Amino acid sequence: MNVNLDQMNLTRRPFIKTVVGASLATMVARAQEPSNPEKKLGWALVGLGSLSSKQIAPALLNSKHCKLVAVVTGTPEKGVKWREQYGLAEDKVYSYESFDKIIDDPDIDVVYIVLPNSMHHEFTIRAAKAGKHVFCEKPMANSAKECREMIAACAAVKRQLGIGYRCQFELHHQEAMRLAREQVFGPLQHLDAGFGFAIGDPTQWRLRKALAGGGALMDVGVYALQACCYLAGEEPVEVSALETKTDPVKFAEVDETIHWMMKFPSGLTANCLTTYRFSGCDHFTAYGSKGRFGMKPCYGYSKLAGWTSDPNIPLSFPQTDHFLAEMDAFSLAIIEGRRFEPSGAEGLRDLLVIEAIYRSIASGKKERVEKEA
Amino acid sequence: MNVNLDQMNLTRRPFIKTVVGASLATMVARAQEPSNPEKKLGWALVGLGSLSSKQIAPALLNSKHCKLVAVVTGTPEKGVKWREQYGLAEDKVYSYESFDKIIDDPDIDVVYIVLPNSMHHEFTIRAAKAGKHVFCEKPMANSAKECREMIAACAAVKRQLGIGYRCQFELHHQEAMRLAREQVFGPLQHLDAGFGFAIGDPTQWRLRKALAGGGALMDVGVYALQACCYLAGEEPVEVSALETKTDPVKFAEVDETIHWMMKFPSGLTANCLTTYRFSGCDHFTAYGSKGRFGMKPCYGYSKLAGWTSDPNIPLSFPQTDHFLAEMDAFSLAIIEGRRFEPSGAEGLRDLLVIEAIYRSIASGKKERVEKEA
Repeated sequence: MNVNLDQMNLTRRPFIKTVVGASLATMVARAQEPSNPEKKLGWALVGLGSLSSKQIAPALLNSKHCKLVAVVTGTPEKGVKWREQYGLAEDKVYSYESFDKIIDDPDIDVVYIVLPNSMHHEFTIRAAKAGKHVFCEKPMANSAKECREMIAACAAVKRQLGIGYRCQFELHHQEAMRLAREQVFGPLQHLDAGFGFAIGDPTQWRLRKALAGGGALMDVGVYALQACCYLAGEEPVEVSALETKTDPVKFAEVDETIHWMMKFPSGLTANCLTTYRFSGCDHFTAYGSKGRFGMKPCYGYSKLAGWTSDPNIPLSFPQTDHFLAEMDAFSLAIIEGRRFEPSGAEGLRDLLVIEAIYRSIASGKKERVEKEA
Repeated sequence: MNVNLDQMNLTRRPFIKTVVGASLATMVARAQEPSNPEKKLGWALVGLGSLSSKQIAPALLNSKHCKLVAVVTGTPEKGVKWREQYGLAEDKVYSYESFDKIIDDPDIDVVYIVLPNSMHHEFTIRAAKAGKHVFCEKPMANSAKECREMIAACAAVKRQLGIGYRCQFELHHQEAMRLAREQVFGPLQHLDAGFGFAIGDPTQWRLRKALAGGGALMDVGVYALQACCYLAGEEPVEVSALETKTDPVKFAEVDETIHWMMKFPSGLTANCLTTYRFSGCDHFTAYGSKGRFGMKPCYGYSKLAGWTSDPNIPLSFPQTDHFLAEMDAFSLAIIEGRRFEPSGAEGLRDLLVIEAIYRSIASGKKERVEKEA
């Protein structure tokens, strides 16, 4: 699938310079070195859970600009299986301990971090120290502080840090961003967004605070937050949040249901929900001054559907592979020496909102979102 | 149109005894006096604005149990016009000053208060003192204190006080209440509800605090609040609210946009919006553990539409006259000696939530909803 990069630039959140170093010129210079624009970049997957095996690896098989060249796993048997399945050489299966040796592996251009949230920080920094570009699953990390350190680590070695906000590469979402940005239904006035599901297995890492950092908000709430921000094209300045816990045993460590409100500088307001309690909340609705549009279902891997209040302006596209699109876009940005968005800067901005949401729950008050300098 | 009272009883908010006096037995005894169950009750309309002229009076012409017998207006020319249009005798046009003389008018059984919000309190109490049943437009009053005084005034003379929550008499809403109450889509988990419109004429009474008591929240937000409560079948215990004002001149006295969240005792959560800034927000969505249902448009006089997540369980009915239904239901309750709901007790409960919302906006904190003893 081709990603239209001109369109992407229109629909991204406002371009913000990365915090440290890595000018665009440096990146262009570096990118021109290989002098082979047709080259596929080599990707290493860190963490071989279901996301890697069911979504990411299959997508890589169809990629124009990426190829799977290595895996990193804590389970040797998984390494054997992956080696056979994807025809990897024996020395292309790393453990978490041997991971840093990727510095000597020129076949690896990009490291994709597909680990539990609390490990994103460590492995992003280790990958950067090995001189690799990093593509990191959402949420970027467990705190804004971790995000800043990850951004700095990648900038210090002049490598790109992309965040796996796959919906930004999905056609309905991209068109929705255009509708918002071009004010096709007038300036946006209000957003409703929610994403949740009834979580199963009580032993999974998503329910352990040490691994997940938080609950529904960190895992799926971030999709609703993202949608509000990329539709708004601006960052929320104030949030107010409430938490509800109906099963204090299962959700002893992490949040079960959080609903929150946001105010944006333009006067735009947003109501959001995230939950591990029930399925079926999976949408956004954008209210413009002249009409409305939205998606439902909205954030899954397939079967997405859009609607608008004007029968002459459909919001309907074929289903696409979001993972393929985002990984190709990341590789192509590196090959062509362009800065990739959504970068770590955007992941950081989302963590600043998430931190304000958790502060609001703790204080019982509305909270300002900390602004990044 | 027939109102199915058996069904109504299923779908009402939990039956709560009125605060003062007026036992059901007393009401039954009184109601049996006239010994003419076919009698139409005589209604007097207080306030002849567009709601009275365009909705209520036409509905009364089609009523089985009500007839228009008198009007109360501050504009003598309107009185002449209404007298001619509805064939009223000269002595059936009262002014606000002569209003209390209705005590001597046996043709008037019910007084329907269709005045600006801040006048509901005074005219309800004056109507009660004249021994009349009172039907009062929403919001019931500007404060919980006023509501209590109105309830006490009606109870003291053993007259009923009904609130004009017309949606409770509309077929889609009634079926939605049944879906919620019978847990057809499982127990409710979350509610989204919103109602707003782009308000026009900047000189209208709705924008004057002295007349309206508040802005969008008092006027249309109360529909979203009502929907949440009658779907929930329980009262919210905690609210958190934010206010946004983009036009501080037009909305110098009243609220423009308010979004708020509610928590209910069962763990049910709700996100709500109300606004005078833009049109098109007019819906509720109910998330159950096994599916979803909702309405959009939801709160207007016509063109209402429902939906559910199960194609085998439609939420679709003919459009009906909400005013006719509620007025007939009120008259019939009086004729048959049953207590009418939604009564002043429900109007009071809504004002307690509205007061908590305004308190939350002022304090910047979540607020408990005051419980009525």
